[in-house]
Amino acid sequence: MGRPDYNPKKHSLMTFHNNLSNFYDGSDTPRKFLERCLEKINAIEEDVMAWEIINIDAAREAADQASKRYNERKTLSLVDGMPVGIKDLIETFDMPTEFGSELFEGHQPIRDAASVNALRKGGAVILGKTVTITFGGGDPARTRNPHDTSRTPGGSSSGTAAAVGSGSIPGAIGTHARGSTIRPASFCGAFALKGTYGAINRQGVFSAADSMDHLGVFGGSLSDIWVMARHMSKLGGGDPGHPGLFGGDDPPTSYKPARLIQLETAGWNHTDEKTKETFQNFVNKLSETGVEVYRRSDDPSIDAYEKVFAEMPELWRSLYRFEFQWPMLQYKERYPDKVPPRLLMGLKEAEGLTQAEYREALNRRERARDLHRQLSLRADGFITLSSPGPGPVGMDQGSAVFNEGSSVIGMPALSLPLLSTDNVPVGVQLLGQFNEDERLTSIGRWTAEEHFGI
Amino acid sequence: MGRPDYNPKKHSLMTFHNNLSNFYDGSDTPRKFLERCLEKINAIEEDVMAWEIINIDAAREAADQASKRYNERKTLSLVDGMPVGIKDLIETFDMPTEFGSELFEGHQPIRDAASVNALRKGGAVILGKTVTITFGGGDPARTRNPHDTSRTPGGSSSGTAAAVGSGSIPGAIGTHARGSTIRPASFCGAFALKGTYGAINRQGVFSAADSMDHLGVFGGSLSDIWVMARHMSKLGGGDPGHPGLFGGDDPPTSYKPARLIQLETAGWNHTDEKTKETFQNFVNKLSETGVEVYRRSDDPSIDAYEKVFAEMPELWRSLYRFEFQWPMLQYKERYPDKVPPRLLMGLKEAEGLTQAEYREALNRRERARDLHRQLSLRADGFITLSSPGPGPVGMDQGSAVFNEGSSVIGMPALSLPLLSTDNVPVGVQLLGQFNEDERLTSIGRWTAEEHFGI
Repeated sequence: MGRPDYNPKKHSLMTFHNNLSNFYDGSDTPRKFLERCLEKINAIEEDVMAWEIINIDAAREAADQASKRYNERKTLSLVDGMPVGIKDLIETFDMPTEFGSELFEGHQPIRDAASVNALRKGGAVILGKTVTITFGGGDPARTRNPHDTSRTPGGSSSGTAAAVGSGSIPGAIGTHARGSTIRPASFCGAFALKGTYGAINRQGVFSAADSMDHLGVFGGSLSDIWVMARHMSKLGGGDPGHPGLFGGDDPPTSYKPARLIQLETAGWNHTDEKTKETFQNFVNKLSETGVEVYRRSDDPSIDAYEKVFAEMPELWRSLYRFEFQWPMLQYKERYPDKVPPRLLMGLKEAEGLTQAEYREALNRRERARDLHRQLSLRADGFITLSSPGPGPVGMDQGSAVFNEGSSVIGMPALSLPLLSTDNVPVGVQLLGQFNEDERLTSIGRWTAEEHFGI
Repeated sequence: MGRPDYNPKKHSLMTFHNNLSNFYDGSDTPRKFLERCLEKINAIEEDVMAWEIINIDAAREAADQASKRYNERKTLSLVDGMPVGIKDLIETFDMPTEFGSELFEGHQPIRDAASVNALRKGGAVILGKTVTITFGGGDPARTRNPHDTSRTPGGSSSGTAAAVGSGSIPGAIGTHARGSTIRPASFCGAFALKGTYGAINRQGVFSAADSMDHLGVFGGSLSDIWVMARHMSKLGGGDPGHPGLFGGDDPPTSYKPARLIQLETAGWNHTDEKTKETFQNFVNKLSETGVEVYRRSDDPSIDAYEKVFAEMPELWRSLYRFEFQWPMLQYKERYPDKVPPRLLMGLKEAEGLTQAEYREALNRRERARDLHRQLSLRADGFITLSSPGPGPVGMDQGSAVFNEGSSVIGMPALSLPLLSTDNVPVGVQLLGQFNEDERLTSIGRWTAEEHFGI
């Protein structure tokens, strides 16, 4: 691969939803679409290493069946024929699910996760499993950033983000307990949605920290993301006990926000100067279109919220450390050499954590949620960065400092591949009100269209 | 076995906690205690069939180690040395976990469920796996009622309740999504606690209907139950995102309630006349001690709550049918001959259920929770039956009509083996305020002591 030359205005993500009319009029077919995906994967996989396994025969068969359905105008859903990648923390009945761990080498579930099952029933082409960091929290995986292979793609949905961000596939699903969806999407130049906590059924997915685990949806466009997300929730539900993703089946239309709150979060102080400048210019351009942007200096309640956000990385750790001990502590005790050093370190830090401390962390989270609810009434959404810069050179998966807040609080977060620093991608992050994922996606669409000038 | 002769005043449950001083003074040891358990199991297992597997060597080894710790006064916890049975829906790293299903024949997890891990770390003797109805909702298991083998022990924690209720073991854990803890405890004459929803970590347990699944704790006394429950929650937490079981490590002391609300629930109209009379006499005796007992005829708000309770079986079904489809629908599609008829019927009934209907059911549940919270402020607790009579003759697992309400709403429920009809057991059920499991156990202790005259 040559020198990095990522330009968000000329991005070449692959989108399926925008192609639907071609499938119906016969000028294209899901099978041909799949072959284009495979061609791209073949061209870059040696360098990018995004995939654990590709189920090529089954995928071609599924794509042929979908092609037939488009021809006969008997499609099953808006994801019919769409090639999707599945992070290897998510169970698939027809491919091993190894959680990136030797401990589960060859592990073959007898069922699909609820999300995969929903996609499959909607006619989606379950193409393969994408590389994950071990148990979502281990040491960096082998995957490289498709826009600069000297850089990390981020984690833990490393392969998922790289596959979508490289323009290999139009959609994929990952997970998110800390920054595992928004961070790699930012680094790899993909669109991604981490919906409201509970919006998409996580049953059959490895649990890292159950009260912060989300299913993440990656796409070549917001339309691709929306049709996947909504279809999964409609057919498979949200997490049990949750109402699931609200909204219609069709992708939300573009909506220009009247007011946005620009947040520093815990991340701004960790952001490199170039990225700060790029982002501030971006926000200024939004302002020039007439969007009112408020900051902590404009309003004491925003300042109060920023102070709460500044504590989120620490609060995240308190919750995570208590929750991730099952089953990880047992794996450590019984198979110490098969638990990655990074997780061993986390377990060490978790020693002696009491239930009383965990309860206090839960209470702090509830207070943060109340603040978020209140502040959300005063604007159409929040805008910040997805990461404190592009994916770092080397294999460290990068910082999640812009992500821990929304993982703890559980509001929806969207990453848009609209910026670049040093010719590699950096995402713009939008945050919304609980259960208003659809509105957030509408605002995201306007923001992306405004930026791309279409 | 001879004719039924169960007399709650002469019940012979096995209790471990009451024996602690004997372990410390050397007049008894956990190993000897275990041998007494094994003796009883050997005497009745052929008729009762409560066990899937008994890990006899490992149990003797664990009991010996505990005996040594008592001798050295270095015990690990209040459950140290306690022989416990584990329902076969709950993962154990050293014994297969088959969920009562051929589909998981020989299935060997590499970890303990969070609850089992906590017990094991506290020195408890993990004796074996107890029989469960297939996936907690299939057709009745082979286990028989230990007090009358012509009758059902109830389900789905069939073996768990039979093992404790027969006086074979002092403690065991089961699950509860509908009536699977309170019902079999009632039929088998065991004490049992289904705590506040989320009070004990369910990770590593088969999920039947996640938003109603509880871990159930069975014991030969309320002390045995409490030390197990509190230890599991203290060491293993509650469900992630929940504060866990509140209370001290030691068993709660006896507390005489000033006021109880007697509830009919959906069950009273289904209760046989003998059991109605027995229960009403029991409540009258409580009144005679000075406890004020209020009923729907005394207070319009109780009447309103009864009306909500009357709808609980139907609301339970709405929630269950939506939630249990994953993974059951896939098992049906791929292995149709391995899914029991009862579950197939449920899947049939679940066809066409929409997310909108599920959301409406969630909203109805929230309204019922609000009513429960409000009414709980007006008394020390609620009293009703655990089941509409004794375990029926035959292998039908009996009705859960007294249990669906607390499964939906999630408040703590306690079954006390204080009644009998036709010389077989029937339980008294106490219900409490959310998170006040300790207070409920205190009231249960007073109620049991008052009845047993000790």
